[in-house]
Amino acid sequence: MIEIKSTNYSVFIVKDIVKELNSFFKLNKVKYSKIFILVDENTLKYCYPQLGAEVTEFKKAEIIEIDSGEENKSIELCIQIWSALSEMKADRLSLLVNLGGGVIGDMGGFIASTFKRGIDFINIPTTLLSQVDASIGGKVGIDFNHLKNEIGVFSNPSGVFVDINMLNTLDKRQVLSGFAEMIKHALIADENYWNEIKQANLSNLADFDSLIESSINIKNSIVQKDPMEKNIRKSLNFGHTIGHAIETLFLDHNTVEKTLLHGEAIAIGMVCEAYLSNQKLTLSAIQLKEITNFILNIYSPALFSESDYDSLIELMLHDKKNNNGEINFTLISAIGKSEINKIISTDLIKESLNYYLEKSQIVLKNKNI
Amino acid sequence: MIEIKSTNYSVFIVKDIVKELNSFFKLNKVKYSKIFILVDENTLKYCYPQLGAEVTEFKKAEIIEIDSGEENKSIELCIQIWSALSEMKADRLSLLVNLGGGVIGDMGGFIASTFKRGIDFINIPTTLLSQVDASIGGKVGIDFNHLKNEIGVFSNPSGVFVDINMLNTLDKRQVLSGFAEMIKHALIADENYWNEIKQANLSNLADFDSLIESSINIKNSIVQKDPMEKNIRKSLNFGHTIGHAIETLFLDHNTVEKTLLHGEAIAIGMVCEAYLSNQKLTLSAIQLKEITNFILNIYSPALFSESDYDSLIELMLHDKKNNNGEINFTLISAIGKSEINKIISTDLIKESLNYYLEKSQIVLKNKNI
Repeated sequence: MIEIKSTNYSVFIVKDIVKELNSFFKLNKVKYSKIFILVDENTLKYCYPQLGAEVTEFKKAEIIEIDSGEENKSIELCIQIWSALSEMKADRLSLLVNLGGGVIGDMGGFIASTFKRGIDFINIPTTLLSQVDASIGGKVGIDFNHLKNEIGVFSNPSGVFVDINMLNTLDKRQVLSGFAEMIKHALIADENYWNEIKQANLSNLADFDSLIESSINIKNSIVQKDPMEKNIRKSLNFGHTIGHAIETLFLDHNTVEKTLLHGEAIAIGMVCEAYLSNQKLTLSAIQLKEITNFILNIYSPALFSESDYDSLIELMLHDKKNNNGEINFTLISAIGKSEINKIISTDLIKESLNYYLEKSQIVLKNKNI
Repeated sequence: MIEIKSTNYSVFIVKDIVKELNSFFKLNKVKYSKIFILVDENTLKYCYPQLGAEVTEFKKAEIIEIDSGEENKSIELCIQIWSALSEMKADRLSLLVNLGGGVIGDMGGFIASTFKRGIDFINIPTTLLSQVDASIGGKVGIDFNHLKNEIGVFSNPSGVFVDINMLNTLDKRQVLSGFAEMIKHALIADENYWNEIKQANLSNLADFDSLIESSINIKNSIVQKDPMEKNIRKSLNFGHTIGHAIETLFLDHNTVEKTLLHGEAIAIGMVCEAYLSNQKLTLSAIQLKEITNFILNIYSPALFSESDYDSLIELMLHDKKNNNGEINFTLISAIGKSEINKIISTDLIKESLNYYLEKSQIVLKNKNI
């Protein structure tokens, strides 16, 4: 078991989650009056049975089940879950266990942080994305008015339990979605880690153990320096200004493409923002090419076009990260070195989208030959 | 102008609110991109016109108007106001000004604290109750599932501006509602202040200036010692365990009595809890009588009866302050001295309700003679 200490709580990377949870509850200062476990249909089926049977404190826990999917990270679901907690007489000494991916972790954390002005919660992230990203850093919240994470607060869990075995039932696309955030960690903070990332065998989860640890360490060290995202934490936004807009565009489209995953959108964002980094900062053409090819070889191209550019710009202007009608980026001056607060013109943003579309078409053609 | 410093912000007790607001914005480090002012029909009519015309930063502010009344302190209204902010392109550098009483302050604070994970807000409390109580201490939230302040967070404003002139348009009942919290401040913390409170001329607002300052000082000093209500802050709950239950009972009753004001309910709670303090702690029979008579002479008796006792107990069990099926009280061992975490049996609670009903009937009869 590896313990990574964060602000008032720890992230535990565990081999035997049952043992570690039992030990956590035994050593924990707070004795919880009731435990509630938030699950979706997948985590109820694949992750809950062992925990419910073998973690002593979970044997009398109440299960709250929601449907999986980003569209459920909504205020309407919060209202249902707050009501459920209230009706099952949750009190200030109750604990909410978020057993799931980013939706469960983000929304469950928000619900716990606002119920009776805040009850404890722990995260057991069950996707690679939530293990390396959403579960750490205290950002909790929901989507609102078609905007991602529009309503939320900063609030830390009482513990995070990362178990690589949880990933066994994930399909490859879900794994790759999480991998995008790990690519980002390397690009913004650590060139050596980038070299490890490039050599990872994406079909062998066993390869991921030390990579997950590196990613959690990078993210944790950044958020501890700047929990409220006043400065250095913004470096984690690399790929996200354009990536979030693309993700939202696909959420709004009622087409087959609406299933674009978070990491898939961020991968596109990183290609575009690497282009901007080459144009506005010192990122070399060679490193830009290296990043572009690595990402485009992993992720399928997304089907947006020039006709979507204005909608994308509009979405970026609405992003929480942007004020005063300006669009703000985190860029990289080299692999492993980030710079925050770069304002980029809409013309150059459109140029970066052109760059992505052009390069992804070339990769696609080569693959088809 | 008197400045009372709190955690990262100040409460300003002002004579010339326009001048002080202009000076606040001039000296403030953050330059707000947009200002939104939350009002109800009363504060729009009586308080906004002068501020909107004379505070420079307010001239371009957007007004968000809601209906007055506790029933609007709801998640449905939050959704409407979050949407309004989003549509009017509020960003992280926007400011929300809460111009109103407890509903506006509590709900506006919650909306600001959760919008894009938190934007700045300032409070301009327009009722005595919110000036001496709700505006200070960082508790923000809404009612939910018929429970008061069930959903919320701890979050501090960037400033609070208390102007006694705001109270000129309040009716007497509203003034007395706020006065109940001032009585509480004296009872839990300061016997000298109790002697001043007893001599206050309740018909002359000019008398209130120094009393308001004393009350804010008492509350502020308590919440600064214990912002998250782990210990000493619970002393502010005197009168509130029973008081909140009575308030909620009257909210749920669809009768004429449903207009029982917060302070009127707390006044009843203080009589009952003074009785408990005499039974379980060292509060003398003489001081109990002094408290009972003072309160019953000011506030009209509330029309509940023995048939409501079980509902009241049920509501107390649901209170945020109570865990593990026990009902927890803050009591006083003497006027000016509080003790927290006193568990009281339901039988004794019912006895205290009997005490209130009996004493209030005697006062009523005497008044009618």
